[in-house]
Amino acid sequence: MATKKFAGESPYKVAKKTHHASDWILTDFVNKVNLVSDKPGVKPPVVAAIFGIGRAGSIHLCNIIRNPRVLLKYIVDDRKERFDELRSFWNLSDVTFLTSKDSDRVFKDKAVSTVFIASPTFTHHEIVVKSIANNKDVFCEKPIAESIAETKKCYDTANAKGRVLFAAFNRRFDPSYRNLKMKVREGLVGHVQVLKVTARDSPLPTIDYLRTSGGVFHDCLVHDFDMACWVLGELPVRVQATATALIPEIKAIDDFDNIAFLMTFPSGAIAIGDNSRFSVYGYDQRLEVFGNKGMIKVENEKPSASTDYVIEQDGCKSHPIYYSFPSRYKDAYAREVEHFLDVVQYGVPQEVTGWQTLAISKIATAAEESARTNKTIEIDWSKDDIPNIYS
Amino acid sequence: MATKKFAGESPYKVAKKTHHASDWILTDFVNKVNLVSDKPGVKPPVVAAIFGIGRAGSIHLCNIIRNPRVLLKYIVDDRKERFDELRSFWNLSDVTFLTSKDSDRVFKDKAVSTVFIASPTFTHHEIVVKSIANNKDVFCEKPIAESIAETKKCYDTANAKGRVLFAAFNRRFDPSYRNLKMKVREGLVGHVQVLKVTARDSPLPTIDYLRTSGGVFHDCLVHDFDMACWVLGELPVRVQATATALIPEIKAIDDFDNIAFLMTFPSGAIAIGDNSRFSVYGYDQRLEVFGNKGMIKVENEKPSASTDYVIEQDGCKSHPIYYSFPSRYKDAYAREVEHFLDVVQYGVPQEVTGWQTLAISKIATAAEESARTNKTIEIDWSKDDIPNIYS
Amino acid sequence: MATKKFAGESPYKVAKKTHHASDWILTDFVNKVNLVSDKPGVKPPVVAAIFGIGRAGSIHLCNIIRNPRVLLKYIVDDRKERFDELRSFWNLSDVTFLTSKDSDRVFKDKAVSTVFIASPTFTHHEIVVKSIANNKDVFCEKPIAESIAETKKCYDTANAKGRVLFAAFNRRFDPSYRNLKMKVREGLVGHVQVLKVTARDSPLPTIDYLRTSGGVFHDCLVHDFDMACWVLGELPVRVQATATALIPEIKAIDDFDNIAFLMTFPSGAIAIGDNSRFSVYGYDQRLEVFGNKGMIKVENEKPSASTDYVIEQDGCKSHPIYYSFPSRYKDAYAREVEHFLDVVQYGVPQEVTGWQTLAISKIATAAEESARTNKTIEIDWSKDDIPNIYS
Amino acid sequence: MATKKFAGESPYKVAKKTHHASDWILTDFVNKVNLVSDKPGVKPPVVAAIFGIGRAGSIHLCNIIRNPRVLLKYIVDDRKERFDELRSFWNLSDVTFLTSKDSDRVFKDKAVSTVFIASPTFTHHEIVVKSIANNKDVFCEKPIAESIAETKKCYDTANAKGRVLFAAFNRRFDPSYRNLKMKVREGLVGHVQVLKVTARDSPLPTIDYLRTSGGVFHDCLVHDFDMACWVLGELPVRVQATATALIPEIKAIDDFDNIAFLMTFPSGAIAIGDNSRFSVYGYDQRLEVFGNKGMIKVENEKPSASTDYVIEQDGCKSHPIYYSFPSRYKDAYAREVEHFLDVVQYGVPQEVTGWQTLAISKIATAAEESARTNKTIEIDWSKDDIPNIYS
Repeated sequence: MATKKFAGESPYKVAKKTHHASDWILTDFVNKVNLVSDKPGVKPPVVAAIFGIGRAGSIHLCNIIRNPRVLLKYIVDDRKERFDELRSFWNLSDVTFLTSKDSDRVFKDKAVSTVFIASPTFTHHEIVVKSIANNKDVFCEKPIAESIAETKKCYDTANAKGRVLFAAFNRRFDPSYRNLKMKVREGLVGHVQVLKVTARDSPLPTIDYLRTSGGVFHDCLVHDFDMACWVLGELPVRVQATATALIPEIKAIDDFDNIAFLMTFPSGAIAIGDNSRFSVYGYDQRLEVFGNKGMIKVENEKPSASTDYVIEQDGCKSHPIYYSFPSRYKDAYAREVEHFLDVVQYGVPQEVTGWQTLAISKIATAAEESARTNKTIEIDWSKDDIPNIYS
Repeated sequence: MATKKFAGESPYKVAKKTHHASDWILTDFVNKVNLVSDKPGVKPPVVAAIFGIGRAGSIHLCNIIRNPRVLLKYIVDDRKERFDELRSFWNLSDVTFLTSKDSDRVFKDKAVSTVFIASPTFTHHEIVVKSIANNKDVFCEKPIAESIAETKKCYDTANAKGRVLFAAFNRRFDPSYRNLKMKVREGLVGHVQVLKVTARDSPLPTIDYLRTSGGVFHDCLVHDFDMACWVLGELPVRVQATATALIPEIKAIDDFDNIAFLMTFPSGAIAIGDNSRFSVYGYDQRLEVFGNKGMIKVENEKPSASTDYVIEQDGCKSHPIYYSFPSRYKDAYAREVEHFLDVVQYGVPQEVTGWQTLAISKIATAAEESARTNKTIEIDWSKDDIPNIYS
Repeated sequence: MATKKFAGESPYKVAKKTHHASDWILTDFVNKVNLVSDKPGVKPPVVAAIFGIGRAGSIHLCNIIRNPRVLLKYIVDDRKERFDELRSFWNLSDVTFLTSKDSDRVFKDKAVSTVFIASPTFTHHEIVVKSIANNKDVFCEKPIAESIAETKKCYDTANAKGRVLFAAFNRRFDPSYRNLKMKVREGLVGHVQVLKVTARDSPLPTIDYLRTSGGVFHDCLVHDFDMACWVLGELPVRVQATATALIPEIKAIDDFDNIAFLMTFPSGAIAIGDNSRFSVYGYDQRLEVFGNKGMIKVENEKPSASTDYVIEQDGCKSHPIYYSFPSRYKDAYAREVEHFLDVVQYGVPQEVTGWQTLAISKIATAAEESARTNKTIEIDWSKDDIPNIYS
Repeated sequence: MATKKFAGESPYKVAKKTHHASDWILTDFVNKVNLVSDKPGVKPPVVAAIFGIGRAGSIHLCNIIRNPRVLLKYIVDDRKERFDELRSFWNLSDVTFLTSKDSDRVFKDKAVSTVFIASPTFTHHEIVVKSIANNKDVFCEKPIAESIAETKKCYDTANAKGRVLFAAFNRRFDPSYRNLKMKVREGLVGHVQVLKVTARDSPLPTIDYLRTSGGVFHDCLVHDFDMACWVLGELPVRVQATATALIPEIKAIDDFDNIAFLMTFPSGAIAIGDNSRFSVYGYDQRLEVFGNKGMIKVENEKPSASTDYVIEQDGCKSHPIYYSFPSRYKDAYAREVEHFLDVVQYGVPQEVTGWQTLAISKIATAAEESARTNKTIEIDWSKDDIPNIYS
């Protein structure tokens, strides 16, 4: 009977508690049951077109076609032979399918207010420019354009026209990373001393893809640099990097497959990163922040996370981590689209801004220079048009 | 240089591997990208009505709306005042909203082939009967009816009419539990010796709900009994139970809040379970199977599972487990609907059969008797119409 | 610079904190550095003999040899051929080695105040009786004697003589279990509702051992019953058990290899246990306590707990759990001896008392009866000499 | 009955397996039970003296006085007032206590073959020199001397005299790190691409200590550099570092409190490290190795690792990690002494060699230069007397 004395009041007598903020799936659900949104009033769905139904495009398509906030009117893709199958598989009786040569129909259709771009990289710039010129809001897979100058011009035009131009930095919308950032900004770990980011890709991209990827610093490490700056709320003044190419085919195209870097920040924080083009055991994505009051980290996630095996004498086994980005960042992709819709429908401030995208590109260029020259690169931000805040 | 000798061939020279079967989210995605289904051909969507848009109903509604396999035609619910808001929140311009007194329109509408039932328990039986009588396939939240006899009659009628009657045992469709069952049936742990199931509810249901719930054995423990029999593929010959009511309000209605049981099976396996009406730390759902070759278990899952804090000297902290069933079993609910659609569209064998539902009810009755009389109850299956297999 | 504002004072300006109580290894160390003991003054070492240098005996020998609190004078064992090797391996120049037929030298040696018994079970009773008769304190591996009546008589005699008779229930001294018990008794989880204990042995004992073990209920489950009563601080009023013998050789000697039980306690708490004679994956020892304010549990431990592998696509692998009791309970055995020395040197209250040992035997007898008769057994404590407290 | 078919043969019919190699505690125990050693024959104990009974000295004292392989003859320490207490606390009737001014008695005592040095850093060199001059084997806490030149000379002299001079790099003897190294060298993760090491100290050392510590690169990071080179089996050709001093008192003495580095190796491997002088949440020590075939890592360990709490809605809590080195590396310290005894008693090859110690010092000097100058430092080994192997 040693613990009976701790029973206390009946739970029916105690003030009810609700769920912890971390259970965002339940929050989403409760909001749907109660028809509650954090936005004022229900806006009519945006009328949209999507360019490109490849890998990334399919992710966005899944999030758009089951979304009551979006009315999909056009799909633009050059694999015409798939149109019938797409229509029946997704039951898209009301959608018009076009190839790119007919895409002007989209730009000229005044009913279309929103364009999602997931077509090949070299096509981004033109679709962005035409969409904005025709007064459409744009959600665009990274990069916006192939040069920093063109990218800057796109943002300037969007700004002048009053349209939204949104670069899809999906990792920002992952619930675990967002929670980490929120806790860090609330002071949970105090003054940040060290931030560590690990990103190892899976599966290995084809050499054809790598050849046109712009190099691993601009293709992959931009996400790592973005995570660091976004969490810390500042830009680095110094970057040191080293990189190797252990896979002969990657060495042959003068790119790298294993990269490590250090960034030093004005606050005294140090960011450390390592990035690999190929991890045999799955898509390894980690982030850790250490401050003078504690540490917080995001480890890898797994499908069916709850299942562990313990077999024979060989030891304990469990499932591999997620294999690749479409499964690891499934929720991030869905929430990214919701954020974009919040921006275009309700004027919510855009989380991935133009100057951030440009600053990250500048860091990538500096880091690549450090790796190629074995020199420490100091980064001068004094002439950039950087706002004082990085919320 | 000690490990350079292990480098082996370039990964570009090695035969490509794809992802592990456990990454079912990626499998789902790849199938969508490739427009591949494991069913022959694409069937037109079923035309459906849903009864009840409360808690469970909302879960199903989310999974039905804009599911390309379902064309939702009617929503039947008695909270008429929410109709306008529902229509605009979900953008349901083509759906007809009805109250239950007009529900005959649904039954008489020959276009409607499918009915989802998530209305209050006492209404299930009538909707089931009318739906089947009007040649509709039925997806029904547990229980089908309030008595075993009525339930049996519903299944018999559905059978005679050639319609599908599907009782929603959601836990069966959770990816982690399905993986566990599959591994056990493949022999991973050998001959099963002990199976353990834990289920602790969160949040505490209202006393009003409990009063009409049919008692914790029929309301909750049926899921635990079902898990055990489904994994083991057999029915118990003996059940022993003990139960206490530590919350005065629950004692007052002669129900229990903490229950434990033992079941002994013909194969020599023993199942052990504990069930609680209220867990302050969240929705605790675990399953473990121990055999002569090893052990496998499903532990609790968490939202943002990858986030851990380590703060100050107090120790390591991480997020709570899922708070309740809508978040914990989100995927299970979605996959349950897909399975039901596979059954009605493609004739895939139904996973939750009528005799299983009836057998579980019989076990619940025996277990409750054991707890109330403090006696071991032997269960005689010889007069039941039980097929030899429990696949 | 977003977190610089959280820096606060220099840690040199902040009041120093010391380590968390859970780091008992550091506490032990700091006490040794500071020559601090929680006992008043330093007592001279006890002069001791040990009977039996088999498996359990070797564990105790390691903890006794060169323990500054013990001066080992005699080793009694019947494998005379090992004496020379033992002496040189352990560098035991001052120890006298005897076989059991010469053991009277130990009993008659007035310098010897303490006897450790780890000889075969059937010899315990006689050594206990002679030791106490000759005014020696006794540390004895379970069981004290082969019958409850004899055991009781030993305790009565020790009591009359004012000597310590200590039955070695090692699990009580494991740091993890002690921490769990302390937290439960402090009210961390509130009023205990469910306690779960799992114990699966490794490796499989020989049939020769099992034949003289007294049966699994008295040989193994006594530890599980003891854990439950010790944590809860009360004795069960009802026990229900089921047991199977899936290994033919165990069935042949009419013993069981898989056992499950339920115990119901006066406070309303329910204890659930499962015990197996053989687990292929190692020595599985778990304990969980669920109350109305939370849950606490002790999971399995591992050697080199910090090492995880992640290899290829097959998934994540880590080391097996401890293989057997000498490694899993290494610290428990060492601390058990220290407690015994605290009792004999400083009069600290004995943690494993005579009536507890006898009560646990009574529960084991009832549980075995339940398993053999398939009946619920009510346990009547009204005629037992049980003190009101179970601290 | 679905799994009965997997039962297979009785475990009594199957060839017995023994425990997994990772359960080294059981291996140690079994060897003791069987009086088995991996060395030929049992050697008489070494006669030893220990200098310094402070923090590190107490760790070694604990491992020496309960060790049958060591006969402790002298304790040399300048806190004379503790001698009586030490003698009675540890029951050291046969040990002679001396202060340092009488330490010549030790050097001149021909019976003493072995000296353990754990006195203040500035005294190391002299004790080492005198011990070797008097033909004693030496176990010395790092550093051997305060300059690289003096250190080199000590090794040369020891070599000339045929005595063992052993620098205590304790981390090498931790079971988890050793297991990691063994697996890496066996090719488990293939060709190593990235090695990551994290070391955060706890508690914060005093400023007095730091002032004479030689700086964090030589005091702390030497362990991180040693881990990297020891696992990889090669020496870096390039080092890049950045360091900050966020604690004012540390800045004031021109030292650093947060340091990060990159090292590039001839094999193409990259080592990444971060080191902090103070972690509020405990002694954080991690190591990870990523190769083209997989990944292996050593995470933090905890006292009572098996205990987890789950409380209320706030989330899951568990104990902090180890607070400091005496608890985290308890086993490493004990095994380090055993290795040293293997070297002096049985001529087993010394694991921490002189050239390794000197090479690590050179790396530390280069890394500090990089951090102070913000330049990449190339390291030239061509003029060093480095053997070809680093086993």
